[in-house]
Amino acid sequence: MTTPNTMRGVLAPVVTPFKSDLSVDKDRLIAHCKWLLSQDCGLAIFGTNSEATSLTMDERFEIIDTLVEVGLDPARMMPGTGCCSLFESIALTKHAVDLGCGGVLMLPPFYYKGVSDEGIYRNFAEIIERIGDNRLRVYLYHFPQMSAVPFSIELVQRLLENFPGIVVGMKDSSGDEDNLVAMINAFPGFGLFAGNETLLLKNMRIGGVGCISATANINPAGIVNLFDFWEADNADDIQNTLDAVRKSVQQFNLISAMKKMIAHYASDPDWNRVRPPLIELDEIQATKLIDDLSLLNFEMPGLKV
Amino acid sequence: MTTPNTMRGVLAPVVTPFKSDLSVDKDRLIAHCKWLLSQDCGLAIFGTNSEATSLTMDERFEIIDTLVEVGLDPARMMPGTGCCSLFESIALTKHAVDLGCGGVLMLPPFYYKGVSDEGIYRNFAEIIERIGDNRLRVYLYHFPQMSAVPFSIELVQRLLENFPGIVVGMKDSSGDEDNLVAMINAFPGFGLFAGNETLLLKNMRIGGVGCISATANINPAGIVNLFDFWEADNADDIQNTLDAVRKSVQQFNLISAMKKMIAHYASDPDWNRVRPPLIELDEIQATKLIDDLSLLNFEMPGLKV
Repeated sequence: MTTPNTMRGVLAPVVTPFKSDLSVDKDRLIAHCKWLLSQDCGLAIFGTNSEATSLTMDERFEIIDTLVEVGLDPARMMPGTGCCSLFESIALTKHAVDLGCGGVLMLPPFYYKGVSDEGIYRNFAEIIERIGDNRLRVYLYHFPQMSAVPFSIELVQRLLENFPGIVVGMKDSSGDEDNLVAMINAFPGFGLFAGNETLLLKNMRIGGVGCISATANINPAGIVNLFDFWEADNADDIQNTLDAVRKSVQQFNLISAMKKMIAHYASDPDWNRVRPPLIELDEIQATKLIDDLSLLNFEMPGLKV
Repeated sequence: MTTPNTMRGVLAPVVTPFKSDLSVDKDRLIAHCKWLLSQDCGLAIFGTNSEATSLTMDERFEIIDTLVEVGLDPARMMPGTGCCSLFESIALTKHAVDLGCGGVLMLPPFYYKGVSDEGIYRNFAEIIERIGDNRLRVYLYHFPQMSAVPFSIELVQRLLENFPGIVVGMKDSSGDEDNLVAMINAFPGFGLFAGNETLLLKNMRIGGVGCISATANINPAGIVNLFDFWEADNADDIQNTLDAVRKSVQQFNLISAMKKMIAHYASDPDWNRVRPPLIELDEIQATKLIDDLSLLNFEMPGLKV
């Protein structure tokens, strides 16, 4: 099989800043996206770490329209467009295609548990057929810990067979290295993104195309560096350095921790807001986070202050 | 504590019929709601069994507006209004209050797993405070198997203390009898609905107010009969009869099975549609379901043919 036009590299599920009334802070979001692109990091807006499910559908349309309107390249965007509702998935996906997004990252419908492969297949088939646009590029978002709805090998095979060139890849957030290997072995050329940078080197070595990682929001240059030099002699050292940063951040809720980091390194406390049901880090957690990162000489170069 | 104006009785999470293009079939929905009300069964539209999360927000607004416009009593409605997105929860809940609904049944935001009680509390506090309407009556929807986000005793206590007369009850779909008892012991007068009729008699005996059950869609009169006569000598016999019907239905996906039953007993095959990720019963399942129900002499009296 061939996978035309597969996106590659490092993408961040872009964290979404909020104003004091919890509305979306578009100016800060635009600035953060520009900074990520300046580090050669793509924009997986509306990911788990974007608090996408905490955004209304209207907000998601407004955000993506705004980012494109201000001139950010849609080809570098892979918005999350998989909703519980089939018709909301269709509307948001179609809009992303119309705007020229490089791809879409689609969760399965995630409310009902224990659903059949047939049911998930029908969800994606309805979306793809109703949109009916050859520009559509679907990346399946495999994240059983959060969605509780996994993509089996058999299901991926059926989708690839019936929608070649449309279903082109996957973000595998299971953290299961065996699953990465199984997917790439089953589907050579599959556009396989590791779910975070801890498996980036392994993923590149087996034939994957990069990673989509929360922590690309705060360490984009470091992660892109490994993507660029994964064949270099010191690649394992780069991986180890990245892992140390990741380890410091994921002691805590990733979203809250990353927002705290941006607030801290940009001296911009307005970044330190999340929407319920998430909560901000408390003082003790925040201090521990920044202290641990200082020990690693961590910095966020170029972040606007 | 007192719980003013608590709803009581039997409510059905009203199943949602779809046309062949999968759009909402409003005529069949209205007819089904009228039949349920004629059996003295309330309308918990937008429940898990209504495929609520498979509906768009726009569809939910249209449905509730339509039902009220055709003259169905909003005081008998307890729509599900808890979404992943805080602001969608606020919009839908406010609309239900403005229409005069007897209450709302609210899931916690259900995408993020392992969230804190503080985060769930903030979600409900924001909703209640931003709506700021004393007519609001919130029933918490405790369904850890599906939402993966439970309501702890401590969280319920905090909500009741801070929003007395607004947070008034719960649908406990855990199926855990001990949890029902713990809730009613902790909060005497709490408007506690069992999550299905198998615990209806027990719930009434400990001081609960009824049940909200999927199978009230297909056996409303039977379940209402137990609610009306739970103190009668033969109440356990009535419970046993209800349980046998429930057991036949829940061999299969409840939603698909109930739609098949309505299609069968109303001789209306158009009822036999679900939205992905659900799928219809296959022929073998459907035959087994109807055969098992025939052995119980099950009927759906008054259902329009």
